[in-house]
Amino acid sequence: MLVDLDIKTFSERLAAGTPTPGGGSASALAGALAASLGAMVCDLTVGKPKYESARADLEKDREALQGLRKDLLTLVDRDAEAYDQVAAAMKLPKGTPEEKAKRQEALGRASLFATEIPLKTAESSLAVLKHLKGVAEKGSTSALSDVGVAAHLAHTGLAGAALNIRINLPGIPDRERAERIAERTSSLEAEGVRSMEELQGAVARRMLA
Amino acid sequence: MLVDLDIKTFSERLAAGTPTPGGGSASALAGALAASLGAMVCDLTVGKPKYESARADLEKDREALQGLRKDLLTLVDRDAEAYDQVAAAMKLPKGTPEEKAKRQEALGRASLFATEIPLKTAESSLAVLKHLKGVAEKGSTSALSDVGVAAHLAHTGLAGAALNIRINLPGIPDRERAERIAERTSSLEAEGVRSMEELQGAVARRMLA
Repeated sequence: MLVDLDIKTFSERLAAGTPTPGGGSASALAGALAASLGAMVCDLTVGKPKYESARADLEKDREALQGLRKDLLTLVDRDAEAYDQVAAAMKLPKGTPEEKAKRQEALGRASLFATEIPLKTAESSLAVLKHLKGVAEKGSTSALSDVGVAAHLAHTGLAGAALNIRINLPGIPDRERAERIAERTSSLEAEGVRSMEELQGAVARRMLA
Repeated sequence: MLVDLDIKTFSERLAAGTPTPGGGSASALAGALAASLGAMVCDLTVGKPKYESARADLEKDREALQGLRKDLLTLVDRDAEAYDQVAAAMKLPKGTPEEKAKRQEALGRASLFATEIPLKTAESSLAVLKHLKGVAEKGSTSALSDVGVAAHLAHTGLAGAALNIRINLPGIPDRERAERIAERTSSLEAEGVRSMEELQGAVARRMLA
Protein backbone atom coordinates (compact mmCIF):
# COMPACT_ATOMS: atom_id res chain seq x y z
CA MET A 1 0.00 0.00 0.00
CA LEU A 2 1.07 3.57 -0.74
CA VAL A 3 0.66 4.70 2.88
CA ASP A 4 3.14 1.99 3.96
CA LEU A 5 5.86 3.64 1.86
CA ASP A 6 8.30 5.96 3.58
CA ILE A 7 7.86 9.62 2.72
CA LYS A 8 11.04 9.79 0.63
CA THR A 9 9.99 6.83 -1.52
CA PHE A 10 6.39 8.07 -1.84
CA SER A 11 7.70 11.43 -3.05
CA GLU A 12 9.92 9.65 -5.63
CA ARG A 13 6.99 7.56 -6.88
CA LEU A 14 4.82 10.66 -7.10
CA ALA A 15 7.54 12.44 -9.10
CA ALA A 16 7.91 9.55 -11.56
CA GLY A 17 6.23 9.76 -14.95
CA THR A 18 3.74 7.02 -14.15
CA PRO A 19 0.12 8.11 -13.72
CA THR A 20 -0.25 6.71 -10.15
CA PRO A 21 0.14 7.87 -7.53
CA GLY A 22 -0.97 11.26 -8.86
CA GLY A 23 -2.91 14.35 -7.87
CA GLY A 24 -5.87 12.41 -6.43
CA SER A 25 -3.70 10.53 -3.93
CA ALA A 26 -1.78 13.73 -3.10
CA SER A 27 -5.08 15.52 -2.39
CA ALA A 28 -6.20 12.78 0.01
CA LEU A 29 -2.78 12.92 1.71
CA ALA A 30 -3.10 16.70 2.13
CA GLY A 31 -6.48 16.13 3.81
CA ALA A 32 -4.98 13.45 6.08
CA LEU A 33 -2.11 15.77 7.11
CA ALA A 34 -4.65 18.51 7.86
CA ALA A 35 -6.64 16.16 10.10
CA SER A 36 -3.40 15.07 11.82
CA LEU A 37 -2.36 18.63 12.65
CA GLY A 38 -5.87 19.46 13.86
CA ALA A 39 -5.85 16.42 16.18
CA MET A 40 -2.39 17.49 17.44
CA VAL A 41 -3.66 20.95 18.42
CA CYS A 42 -6.64 19.41 20.27
CA ASP A 43 -4.22 17.10 22.07
CA LEU A 44 -1.83 19.95 22.97
CA THR A 45 -4.73 22.00 24.36
CA VAL A 46 -6.71 19.37 26.29
CA GLY A 47 -5.42 19.24 29.87
CA LYS A 48 -4.18 22.85 29.98
CA PRO A 49 -6.03 24.52 32.91
CA LYS A 50 -6.41 27.75 30.90
CA TYR A 51 -8.50 25.92 28.29
CA GLU A 52 -10.57 23.78 30.68
CA SER A 53 -13.89 25.18 29.42
CA ALA A 54 -13.08 24.04 25.85
CA ARG A 55 -12.01 20.53 26.88
CA ALA A 56 -15.25 18.67 26.03
CA ASP A 57 -15.54 20.31 22.59
CA LEU A 58 -11.88 19.73 21.72
CA GLU A 59 -12.07 16.09 22.81
CA LYS A 60 -14.95 15.61 20.36
CA ASP A 61 -13.02 17.42 17.61
CA ARG A 62 -9.97 15.28 18.29
CA GLU A 63 -11.96 12.06 17.98
CA ALA A 64 -13.63 13.18 14.75
CA LEU A 65 -10.32 14.38 13.28
CA GLN A 66 -8.61 11.09 14.14
CA GLY A 67 -11.40 9.25 12.28
CA LEU A 68 -11.14 11.57 9.27
CA ARG A 69 -7.35 11.16 9.29
CA LYS A 70 -7.73 7.39 8.90
CA ASP A 71 -10.46 7.71 6.24
CA LEU A 72 -8.31 10.09 4.19
CA LEU A 73 -5.24 7.83 4.44
CA THR A 74 -7.39 5.01 3.00
CA LEU A 75 -8.41 7.32 0.14
CA VAL A 76 -4.72 7.83 -0.80
CA ASP A 77 -4.66 4.19 -1.95
CA ARG A 78 -8.27 4.06 -3.18
CA ASP A 79 -7.60 6.94 -5.57
CA ALA A 80 -4.66 5.17 -7.15
CA GLU A 81 -6.84 2.04 -7.58
CA ALA A 82 -9.56 4.11 -9.24
CA TYR A 83 -7.12 5.65 -11.68
CA ASP A 84 -5.62 2.25 -12.45
CA GLN A 85 -9.12 1.03 -13.41
CA VAL A 86 -9.56 3.93 -15.85
CA ALA A 87 -6.14 3.20 -17.37
CA ALA A 88 -6.98 -0.53 -17.67
CA ALA A 89 -10.31 0.24 -19.40
CA MET A 90 -8.54 2.53 -21.88
CA LYS A 91 -6.25 -0.33 -22.86
CA LEU A 92 -9.13 -2.73 -23.74
CA PRO A 93 -9.32 -3.70 -27.43
CA LYS A 94 -11.68 -1.73 -29.67
CA GLY A 95 -11.45 -3.67 -32.95
CA THR A 96 -15.00 -5.00 -33.26
CA PRO A 97 -18.31 -3.24 -32.37
CA GLU A 98 -18.69 -5.76 -29.48
CA GLU A 99 -15.22 -4.90 -28.15
CA LYS A 100 -15.93 -1.20 -28.52
CA ALA A 101 -19.19 -1.51 -26.56
CA LYS A 102 -17.50 -3.55 -23.85
CA ARG A 103 -14.63 -1.06 -23.58
CA GLN A 104 -17.07 1.86 -23.43
CA GLU A 105 -19.01 0.21 -20.63
CA ALA A 106 -15.84 -0.53 -18.62
CA LEU A 107 -14.63 3.04 -19.15
CA GLY A 108 -17.96 4.44 -17.95
CA ARG A 109 -17.87 2.32 -14.81
CA ALA A 110 -14.23 3.21 -14.09
CA SER A 111 -14.88 6.93 -14.65
CA LEU A 112 -17.79 6.87 -12.21
CA PHE A 113 -15.55 5.20 -9.60
CA ALA A 114 -12.83 7.76 -10.36
CA THR A 115 -15.23 10.59 -9.45
CA GLU A 116 -16.73 8.83 -6.41
CA ILE A 117 -13.36 8.44 -4.68
CA PRO A 118 -12.29 12.11 -4.96
CA LEU A 119 -15.86 13.07 -3.99
CA LYS A 120 -15.23 11.24 -0.70
CA THR A 121 -11.87 13.04 -0.38
CA ALA A 122 -13.62 16.39 -0.95
CA GLU A 123 -16.33 15.61 1.63
CA SER A 124 -13.85 14.41 4.25
CA SER A 125 -11.54 17.40 3.67
CA LEU A 126 -14.49 19.77 4.12
CA ALA A 127 -15.40 17.94 7.35
CA VAL A 128 -11.79 18.46 8.52
CA LEU A 129 -12.04 22.18 7.69
CA LYS A 130 -15.25 22.50 9.74
CA HIS A 131 -13.66 20.86 12.80
CA LEU A 132 -10.58 23.07 12.34
CA LYS A 133 -12.82 26.11 12.63
CA GLY A 134 -13.73 25.01 16.17
CA VAL A 135 -10.07 24.29 16.94
CA ALA A 136 -9.08 27.77 15.67
CA GLU A 137 -11.66 29.36 17.98
CA LYS A 138 -10.97 27.30 21.11
CA GLY A 139 -7.54 25.66 20.83
CA SER A 140 -4.30 26.82 22.44
CA THR A 141 -3.19 30.15 20.98
CA SER A 142 0.42 28.92 20.97
CA ALA A 143 -0.57 26.43 18.22
CA LEU A 144 -2.52 28.85 16.00
CA SER A 145 0.07 28.62 13.23
CA ASP A 146 -0.46 24.83 13.18
CA VAL A 147 -4.22 25.35 12.78
CA GLY A 148 -3.49 27.77 9.93
CA VAL A 149 -1.24 25.25 8.14
CA ALA A 150 -3.90 22.56 8.69
CA ALA A 151 -6.53 24.83 7.11
CA HIS A 152 -4.43 25.33 3.96
CA LEU A 153 -3.85 21.56 3.74
CA ALA A 154 -7.57 20.77 4.17
CA HIS A 155 -8.46 23.34 1.51
CA THR A 156 -5.89 21.73 -0.80
CA GLY A 157 -7.52 18.33 -0.15
CA LEU A 158 -10.91 19.75 -1.11
CA ALA A 159 -9.85 21.87 -4.12
CA GLY A 160 -7.49 19.15 -5.40
CA ALA A 161 -10.20 16.50 -5.16
CA ALA A 162 -12.61 18.80 -7.02
CA LEU A 163 -10.13 19.05 -9.93
CA ASN A 164 -9.91 15.25 -10.01
CA ILE A 165 -13.71 14.88 -10.02
CA ARG A 166 -14.11 17.32 -12.91
CA ILE A 167 -11.45 15.70 -15.08
CA ASN A 168 -13.30 12.35 -14.86
CA LEU A 169 -16.86 13.62 -15.34
CA PRO A 170 -16.85 13.56 -19.18
CA GLY A 171 -16.32 9.76 -19.11
CA ILE A 172 -19.57 9.06 -17.20
CA PRO A 173 -22.29 7.87 -19.63
CA ASP A 174 -25.23 8.75 -17.31
CA ARG A 175 -25.22 12.52 -17.93
CA GLU A 176 -27.83 13.29 -15.27
CA ARG A 177 -25.70 11.56 -12.68
CA ALA A 178 -22.60 13.43 -13.91
CA GLU A 179 -24.55 16.69 -13.61
CA ARG A 180 -25.54 15.88 -10.01
CA ILE A 181 -21.91 15.11 -9.14
CA ALA A 182 -20.79 18.40 -10.71
CA GLU A 183 -23.37 20.35 -8.67
CA ARG A 184 -22.40 18.56 -5.45
CA THR A 185 -18.73 19.38 -6.15
CA SER A 186 -19.46 23.08 -6.66
CA SER A 187 -21.49 23.23 -3.46
CA LEU A 188 -18.69 21.53 -1.46
CA GLU A 189 -16.19 24.03 -2.88
CA ALA A 190 -18.40 27.00 -1.99
CA GLU A 191 -18.83 25.69 1.56
CA GLY A 192 -15.06 25.20 1.74
CA VAL A 193 -14.37 28.81 0.77
CA ARG A 194 -16.79 30.02 3.46
CA SER A 195 -15.29 27.75 6.17
CA MET A 196 -11.79 28.81 5.18
CA GLU A 197 -12.65 32.51 5.48
CA GLU A 198 -14.29 32.08 8.89
CA LEU A 199 -11.37 30.01 10.12
CA GLN A 200 -8.72 32.44 8.89
CA GLY A 201 -10.68 35.28 10.53
CA ALA A 202 -10.56 33.42 13.86
CA VAL A 203 -6.81 32.71 13.51
CA ALA A 204 -6.00 36.34 12.66
CA ARG A 205 -8.18 37.69 15.50
CA ARG A 206 -6.63 35.42 18.14
CA MET A 207 -3.06 35.92 16.85
CA LEU A 208 -3.42 39.69 17.37
CA ALA A 209 -5.21 39.38 20.74
CA MET B 1 14.74 10.97 10.17
CA LEU B 2 11.10 11.95 9.67
CA VAL B 3 11.20 11.40 5.90
CA ASP B 4 12.27 7.78 6.52
CA LEU B 5 8.98 7.12 8.34
CA ASP B 6 6.14 5.51 6.43
CA ILE B 7 3.23 7.82 5.70
CA LYS B 8 0.90 6.14 8.19
CA THR B 9 3.41 6.50 11.04
CA PHE B 10 4.30 10.09 10.06
CA SER B 11 0.61 10.98 10.14
CA GLU B 12 0.28 9.39 13.61
CA ARG B 13 3.30 11.31 14.91
CA LEU B 14 1.93 14.54 13.44
CA ALA B 15 -1.43 13.89 15.14
CA ALA B 16 0.17 13.25 18.54
CA GLY B 17 0.19 16.02 21.14
CA THR B 18 3.94 16.51 20.94
CA PRO B 19 5.16 19.75 19.36
CA THR B 20 7.26 18.06 16.62
CA PRO B 21 6.67 17.25 13.90
CA GLY B 22 4.26 20.17 13.55
CA GLY B 23 3.01 22.72 11.04
CA GLY B 24 6.49 23.69 9.85
CA SER B 25 7.38 20.14 8.81
CA ALA B 26 3.92 19.69 7.26
CA SER B 27 4.44 22.87 5.20
CA ALA B 28 7.78 21.64 3.87
CA LEU B 29 6.16 18.28 3.02
CA ALA B 30 3.36 20.06 1.13
CA GLY B 31 6.03 21.89 -0.90
CA ALA B 32 7.88 18.62 -1.58
CA LEU B 33 4.66 16.92 -2.77
CA ALA B 34 4.00 19.90 -5.06
CA ALA B 35 7.47 19.60 -6.60
CA SER B 36 6.95 15.84 -7.01
CA LEU B 37 3.68 16.26 -8.91
CA GLY B 38 5.19 18.99 -11.07
CA ALA B 39 8.13 16.74 -11.98
CA MET B 40 5.66 13.93 -12.77
CA VAL B 41 3.76 16.11 -15.25
CA CYS B 42 7.04 17.12 -16.97
CA ASP B 43 7.97 13.44 -17.16
CA LEU B 44 4.54 12.44 -18.56
CA THR B 45 4.79 15.14 -21.22
CA VAL B 46 8.41 14.83 -22.38
CA GLY B 47 8.57 12.36 -25.23
CA LYS B 48 5.00 12.91 -26.49
CA PRO B 49 5.29 14.02 -30.14
CA LYS B 50 2.44 16.54 -29.67
CA TYR B 51 4.53 18.43 -27.08
CA GLU B 52 7.90 18.22 -28.84
CA SER B 53 8.32 22.02 -28.97
CA ALA B 54 8.02 22.23 -25.16
CA ARG B 55 10.51 19.42 -24.49
CA ALA B 56 13.60 21.52 -23.71
CA ASP B 57 11.69 23.82 -21.32
CA LEU B 58 9.97 20.95 -19.53
CA GLU B 59 13.25 19.06 -19.13
CA LYS B 60 14.66 22.12 -17.37
CA ASP B 61 11.55 22.44 -15.19
CA ARG B 62 11.79 18.75 -14.31
CA GLU B 63 15.40 19.05 -13.21
CA ALA B 64 14.70 22.13 -11.12
CA LEU B 65 11.60 20.56 -9.55
CA GLN B 66 13.52 17.39 -8.67
CA GLY B 67 16.13 19.54 -6.91
CA LEU B 68 13.46 21.52 -5.04
CA ARG B 69 11.71 18.27 -4.08
CA LYS B 70 14.89 17.05 -2.37
CA ASP B 71 15.54 20.43 -0.68
CA LEU B 72 12.02 20.54 0.70
CA LEU B 73 12.23 16.97 2.01
CA THR B 74 15.37 18.01 3.93
CA LEU B 75 13.44 20.96 5.38
CA VAL B 76 10.82 18.56 6.83
CA ASP B 77 13.47 17.35 9.27
CA ARG B 78 15.28 20.67 9.66
CA ASP B 79 12.06 22.34 10.82
CA ALA B 80 11.55 19.77 13.57
CA GLU B 81 15.19 20.32 14.67
CA ALA B 82 14.64 24.08 14.78
CA TYR B 83 11.53 23.73 16.92
CA ASP B 84 13.31 21.31 19.25
CA GLN B 85 16.01 23.96 19.82
CA VAL B 86 13.38 26.54 20.79
CA ALA B 87 11.76 24.04 23.18
CA ALA B 88 15.17 23.18 24.71
CA ALA B 89 16.00 26.89 25.24
CA MET B 90 12.64 27.43 26.95
CA LYS B 91 13.47 24.69 29.44
CA LEU B 92 16.80 26.28 30.53
CA PRO B 93 16.90 27.43 34.19
CA LYS B 94 16.11 31.07 34.91
CA GLY B 95 16.83 31.29 38.66
CA THR B 96 19.80 33.72 38.68
CA PRO B 97 20.39 36.80 36.49
CA GLU B 98 23.24 34.89 34.77
CA GLU B 99 20.94 31.96 34.00
CA LYS B 100 18.27 34.33 32.77
CA ALA B 101 20.71 36.05 30.41
CA LYS B 102 22.03 32.73 29.14
CA ARG B 103 18.49 31.42 28.57
CA GLN B 104 17.50 34.63 26.78
CA GLU B 105 20.51 34.39 24.49
CA ALA B 106 19.81 30.72 23.66
CA LEU B 107 16.14 31.52 23.01
CA GLY B 108 17.07 34.36 20.66
CA ARG B 109 19.44 32.16 18.68
CA ALA B 110 16.88 29.33 18.49
CA SER B 111 14.10 31.72 17.42
CA LEU B 112 16.26 33.09 14.61
CA PHE B 113 16.97 29.55 13.40
CA ALA B 114 13.24 28.77 13.69
CA THR B 115 12.47 31.62 11.26
CA GLU B 116 15.36 30.88 8.88
CA ILE B 117 14.20 27.31 8.21
CA PRO B 118 10.58 28.19 7.28
CA LEU B 119 11.97 31.12 5.25
CA LYS B 120 13.81 28.53 3.16
CA THR B 121 10.58 26.49 2.90
CA ALA B 122 8.72 29.61 1.73
CA GLU B 123 11.39 30.46 -0.88
CA SER B 124 11.56 26.91 -2.22
CA SER B 125 7.76 26.60 -2.35
CA LEU B 126 7.55 29.85 -4.31
CA ALA B 127 10.22 28.54 -6.71
CA VAL B 128 8.08 25.39 -7.17
CA LEU B 129 5.04 27.57 -7.92
CA LYS B 130 6.98 29.50 -10.57
CA HIS B 131 8.08 26.32 -12.34
CA LEU B 132 4.52 24.98 -12.11
CA LYS B 133 3.35 28.03 -14.04
CA GLY B 134 5.50 26.92 -16.99
CA VAL B 135 4.25 23.35 -16.60
CA ALA B 136 0.62 24.58 -16.60
CA GLU B 137 1.26 26.48 -19.83
CA LYS B 138 3.23 23.80 -21.70
CA GLY B 139 2.61 20.41 -20.06
CA SER B 140 0.24 17.68 -21.27
CA THR B 141 -3.38 18.83 -21.00
CA SER B 142 -4.35 15.37 -19.74
CA ALA B 143 -2.40 16.13 -16.54
CA LEU B 144 -3.77 19.62 -15.89
CA SER B 145 -5.61 18.50 -12.75
CA ASP B 146 -2.26 17.28 -11.35
CA VAL B 147 -0.71 20.70 -12.01
CA GLY B 148 -3.69 22.28 -10.25
CA VAL B 149 -3.26 20.03 -7.18
CA ALA B 150 0.49 20.78 -7.20
CA ALA B 151 -0.25 24.52 -7.23
CA HIS B 152 -2.49 24.25 -4.15
CA LEU B 153 0.20 22.20 -2.37
CA ALA B 154 2.96 24.69 -3.25
CA HIS B 155 0.81 27.57 -2.05
CA THR B 156 0.19 25.67 1.21
CA GLY B 157 3.98 25.23 1.58
CA LEU B 158 4.48 28.98 1.16
CA ALA B 159 1.54 30.20 3.27
CA GLY B 160 2.17 27.59 5.98
CA ALA B 161 5.86 28.53 6.20
CA ALA B 162 4.90 32.22 6.47
CA LEU B 163 2.72 31.43 9.52
CA ASN B 164 5.66 29.61 11.09
CA ILE B 165 8.02 32.51 10.43
CA ARG B 166 5.64 35.05 12.00
CA ILE B 167 5.04 33.01 15.15
CA ASN B 168 8.81 32.92 15.84
CA LEU B 169 9.63 36.56 15.01
CA PRO B 170 8.84 38.00 18.47
CA GLY B 171 11.64 35.86 19.99
CA ILE B 172 14.40 37.46 17.85
CA PRO B 173 16.33 40.05 19.91
CA ASP B 174 17.72 41.93 16.85
CA ARG B 175 14.54 43.83 15.96
CA GLU B 176 15.92 45.24 12.69
CA ARG B 177 16.71 41.76 11.51
CA ALA B 178 13.25 40.57 12.58
CA GLU B 179 11.73 43.47 10.61
CA ARG B 180 13.70 42.52 7.47
CA ILE B 181 12.53 38.90 7.78
CA ALA B 182 8.91 40.10 8.17
CA GLU B 183 9.20 42.23 5.02
CA ARG B 184 10.79 39.42 3.04
CA THR B 185 7.97 37.08 4.15
CA SER B 186 5.28 39.51 3.01
CA SER B 187 6.95 39.99 -0.36
CA LEU B 188 7.23 36.19 -0.89
CA GLU B 189 3.53 35.83 -0.04
CA ALA B 190 2.53 38.59 -2.45
CA GLU B 191 4.59 36.98 -5.23
CA GLY B 192 2.95 33.66 -4.38
CA VAL B 193 -0.55 35.06 -4.77
CA ARG B 194 0.37 36.52 -8.18
CA SER B 195 1.98 33.27 -9.40
CA MET B 196 -1.02 31.28 -8.16
CA GLU B 197 -3.47 33.50 -10.05
CA GLU B 198 -1.48 33.33 -13.30
CA LEU B 199 -1.13 29.57 -12.98
CA GLN B 200 -4.81 28.98 -12.25
CA GLY B 201 -5.67 31.19 -15.23
CA ALA B 202 -3.53 28.99 -17.48
CA VAL B 203 -5.08 25.77 -16.08
CA ALA B 204 -8.65 27.07 -16.54
CA ARG B 205 -7.93 28.33 -20.08
CA ARG B 206 -6.38 25.05 -21.23
CA MET B 207 -9.01 22.88 -19.49
CA LEU B 208 -11.75 24.65 -21.49
CA ALA B 209 -9.79 24.66 -24.78
